[in-house]
Amino acid sequence: MDDTRFAVLGTGGIGRRTLEVAQYKDGLTPVAACDRNGVAVDHDGLAVEELLAATEGNIASGPTDDTDVETDGGASTDGGGVSAADDAAGGVKQTGDDAGIVASSQGEPTETPIDDVIAESDGIDAVLLALPNLEHDFIPRVAERFAAADYEGVLVDVLKRSRVIGMLDDREETLIDAGITFVCGAGATPGFLTGAAALAAQSFVEVESVDIWWGVGLKSGYEDNRGTVREDIAHLDGYDVETAREMSEAEIEALVDEHDGVLEFHDMEHADDVLLERAGICDAEDVTVGGVLDVRSDEKPVTTTVRVTGRTFDGERGTNTFQLDDATSMEANVNGPALGYVNAAVRRNRAGDYGVFGPAELMPGF
Amino acid sequence: MDDTRFAVLGTGGIGRRTLEVAQYKDGLTPVAACDRNGVAVDHDGLAVEELLAATEGNIASGPTDDTDVETDGGASTDGGGVSAADDAAGGVKQTGDDAGIVASSQGEPTETPIDDVIAESDGIDAVLLALPNLEHDFIPRVAERFAAADYEGVLVDVLKRSRVIGMLDDREETLIDAGITFVCGAGATPGFLTGAAALAAQSFVEVESVDIWWGVGLKSGYEDNRGTVREDIAHLDGYDVETAREMSEAEIEALVDEHDGVLEFHDMEHADDVLLERAGICDAEDVTVGGVLDVRSDEKPVTTTVRVTGRTFDGERGTNTFQLDDATSMEANVNGPALGYVNAAVRRNRAGDYGVFGPAELMPGF
Repeated sequence: MDDTRFAVLGTGGIGRRTLEVAQYKDGLTPVAACDRNGVAVDHDGLAVEELLAATEGNIASGPTDDTDVETDGGASTDGGGVSAADDAAGGVKQTGDDAGIVASSQGEPTETPIDDVIAESDGIDAVLLALPNLEHDFIPRVAERFAAADYEGVLVDVLKRSRVIGMLDDREETLIDAGITFVCGAGATPGFLTGAAALAAQSFVEVESVDIWWGVGLKSGYEDNRGTVREDIAHLDGYDVETAREMSEAEIEALVDEHDGVLEFHDMEHADDVLLERAGICDAEDVTVGGVLDVRSDEKPVTTTVRVTGRTFDGERGTNTFQLDDATSMEANVNGPALGYVNAAVRRNRAGDYGVFGPAELMPGF
Repeated sequence: MDDTRFAVLGTGGIGRRTLEVAQYKDGLTPVAACDRNGVAVDHDGLAVEELLAATEGNIASGPTDDTDVETDGGASTDGGGVSAADDAAGGVKQTGDDAGIVASSQGEPTETPIDDVIAESDGIDAVLLALPNLEHDFIPRVAERFAAADYEGVLVDVLKRSRVIGMLDDREETLIDAGITFVCGAGATPGFLTGAAALAAQSFVEVESVDIWWGVGLKSGYEDNRGTVREDIAHLDGYDVETAREMSEAEIEALVDEHDGVLEFHDMEHADDVLLERAGICDAEDVTVGGVLDVRSDEKPVTTTVRVTGRTFDGERGTNTFQLDDATSMEANVNGPALGYVNAAVRRNRAGDYGVFGPAELMPGF
């Protein structure tokens, strides 16, 4: 396969780490990156180290006034520890107008960063949307802008809200007409673990249940992810999006104290369900997602595990299991798979397969 | 994706089960099957139930005189329980000239079964080679025959001998010229577990080791797989291909008795290593394969497990784990993945990707 030239929209946690991890992969050349105030483009390849140093202040968004990433209605569908932390890490919090990409010798100031990347998209094969999904339809609308510019290539997000996938589906015809292959939910979960579930299902002719159970230790990232903890709270018994949104910081602290810093989530709304159903692995209703978030330790409170239970062609019933080592951070489990799915999607795109895909659909035709 | 019309060469264990399992999958239509004495072709789709009933006697080959599946030099590279049993299950032992496909109302007698399928290959998208690899280059030579007939489509084998993969590579130009996408080693191991290793590697920027450890309980299949037990013995300490080949049945029985029916294998030569290296996951030398075969119980003596150890981008070291439930038979773990890889290969073939591929190369571009 030819080299893949990719761009990153957003240089918060996920965007920055994608640039970093791509250095370890063959055939992936970062050619553009942007944040809120700046854009860097070099079709021969960006100098990643310098860009990473310059954007080091682009940390995950906290509960600041200038965005409402944390408190938008997405909390109801965005899934707790792993996922919420992913989203927050995608946020771009500038520490000042001179911070971020404009501080890089490769960067230029701009008021239209996304349009600037779109203007260069003839030389781009894939774009990772590592943007905070400020409103539910923000990512879908960004996709529309690429389509309007007749971008023929890949768009990948690492979101996990079921409703966003539906919104992308609503725009599928527009994406297909442009020649866009859109991969949604290509991070850790959904993403890595969705692919693992699709693989583990291969012993079975009928899958009865998929159980995804994640652990995240967030001590060192707690301050940067307070907003996502609020999102997670909406998944706790007795809470919902509205009540979580209206809680004061002090109330949240009290709740976290009450739980000794460890929040446990069950039956979370998470797009793994619709993404596995899309791929024909099982019914969405047979997928359950939950996990444990510890905001006072970097150790994972539980081991991230995918269990797939099914029936074999010869009438047996069993459960296959995929487990991530506790030493693998959420960050490590987002970016490797995301870049893998980028590669798979570029291959699909070059073959003329356009539209909206989930991670499990990019696995071998299981 | 359009419907995939597939053929099965060989209606021993694997061929028959592939027809059976395909019934549970969408978009897969079996249109041709052959065994040593017969061929059945229906481009509208074979009636699988009737064919399975007719070929029920096509059991795995034992140590008979008419083939030397069991004692060919492949024992040195063919990997023990899971794999050897796979190969044997692919064997076609006729109980008489009237048995097998010719006993089916859909079957016709023939002396040239493979050529008869090749003659129909314009209407075939994929061919599963579920043949005993009578000589090392038997499968590669079958591939050449398809290439000579300008077959444009997919060929898939479930073999696991490293040397066969090299022989296919030697013929890659011929395969590419014809338009053939050849997938080698697409069964349980290599195959299912190779794909699992490629997935589990995604937490890491550098993989240190892949450890595949399988368990097979073979009590009810022991009589049909005596030859494969002989192959396995070549992997035991103090034995090699030559010594194993020259052992009498009584000597083998004595050895099995000595081990109380449980044979344990370490550092087996197994193509998972070259297949993972091809896909860029790790070096072949970092892959180890072993397992335990119990010929006196159908329970697996150990749980089949893939362990992938690596280093994350953020400097941690960990081991991700994939485990198959003991209740999933080797048979269940061959056919689901094999058909998944067929689907992936057909997609590649239709996109014009020709040549030789391993299972891990068909995973998302990890």
